[in-house]
Amino acid sequence: MALDGVKALVFDVFGTVVDWRAGVIRDAGPFLSSHGGMAEQAEQFADAWRGRYNPAMEEVRSGRRPFTRLDVLHREELERILPDFGVDPGRVTKADLDAFNKAWHRLDPWPDVVAGLARLKRRFVIAPLSNGNIALLLNMAKRAGLPWDAILGAEPAQAYKPSPAAYLRTADILGLAPEEVCLVAAHNADLAAARNCGLRTAYVIRPLENGPPARIIPPNQDWDLVVEGFEDLAGRLGL
Amino acid sequence: MALDGVKALVFDVFGTVVDWRAGVIRDAGPFLSSHGGMAEQAEQFADAWRGRYNPAMEEVRSGRRPFTRLDVLHREELERILPDFGVDPGRVTKADLDAFNKAWHRLDPWPDVVAGLARLKRRFVIAPLSNGNIALLLNMAKRAGLPWDAILGAEPAQAYKPSPAAYLRTADILGLAPEEVCLVAAHNADLAAARNCGLRTAYVIRPLENGPPARIIPPNQDWDLVVEGFEDLAGRLGL
Repeated sequence: MALDGVKALVFDVFGTVVDWRAGVIRDAGPFLSSHGGMAEQAEQFADAWRGRYNPAMEEVRSGRRPFTRLDVLHREELERILPDFGVDPGRVTKADLDAFNKAWHRLDPWPDVVAGLARLKRRFVIAPLSNGNIALLLNMAKRAGLPWDAILGAEPAQAYKPSPAAYLRTADILGLAPEEVCLVAAHNADLAAARNCGLRTAYVIRPLENGPPARIIPPNQDWDLVVEGFEDLAGRLGL
Repeated sequence: MALDGVKALVFDVFGTVVDWRAGVIRDAGPFLSSHGGMAEQAEQFADAWRGRYNPAMEEVRSGRRPFTRLDVLHREELERILPDFGVDPGRVTKADLDAFNKAWHRLDPWPDVVAGLARLKRRFVIAPLSNGNIALLLNMAKRAGLPWDAILGAEPAQAYKPSPAAYLRTADILGLAPEEVCLVAAHNADLAAARNCGLRTAYVIRPLENGPPARIIPPNQDWDLVVEGFEDLAGRLGL
């Protein structure tokens, strides 16, 4: 059986569990149009906001900045990019900015996720290993019905993926050896970093992560498993 | 309605959620008798092990020692007290000591807990705020079916109760103000520390925590709620 000896499955979230792009677009349209921007730019806006994700985390990964939660990074980058979309953040109330920033707490899972996780949970510990902070992942899970056993990731590990500490500290927190933990992710770079730390790897094909038309990014290593979703993963594991 | 404005219920675990004493006694009997001690001393042994709980954490709370997980503290104290019960820890394999140390991962909940938590989870975020570490609480939850939304407590907060940081950082991790969080606990001192930090408080009467005969320790402050268990708590909150 694939993944023999694995006790915990940990999951990348943005793109792997939830459709971040559709969720941000849905909330961005009304926000932009009610603050002087254009709802028609919601897609570009979502891509621009997500485009600031890695540069913002890189400040932490590089050691130039102490660990800072993703909610804070999202909020800073939101104010940075709004002027490019015709919105002066100084003229939006703090409450409105804070509420819109939580668009990342309100993302919907891909259709196979909730049923797949329920099956996987029967045999494995299941937890996010996301760069999202605990409150973000917890609010997302409550809203979407994601049945996590625990909320792990960058905040408890105090390190952002793909820094090795994000993977190694997560295994350590679980009381497991790295090879007893499998990362499930739709991104080759995330899986490569996990494999370098000794974790097992399952690649999930998510052809719609960056919006239609479907675009399959092929696996670029011989991952332990390659699956088409979480129901497929459960089936491959005999669940 | 009691607890108006509260969004998360956080729970003390040892004594409040689970019957630590019966669980440790159950595992201690066979362990002692197979390593040169006497099963008849299991109750005294459980009380002695638990008796080392606060002194061990006090090393961390005082700043004399960096934050160290409860599994590690339990393991150190286990080796310290075993000779008093006729067991030379140097003659027990590491694997046997490690397995017995996880008696704290295998504690059973009080009879009202699982059903009560399921009801409370409908309206509130529910999470442990325990001095137990994440793996301990997670393994306990998987075994007992505790439906936590997240595993919080001393390890993510990097501080042991009743240090204020344990309560304040937990609220901060949840993205909530202290008054939006209610501690549910069977111990006056824990609730007093939480109240000093601005959290709301619910006292649970657990007359059997220290074994029979039933011994009710009365609430010593006017806590926001005083309840007889988690089903009672759910009922009092209209769930």
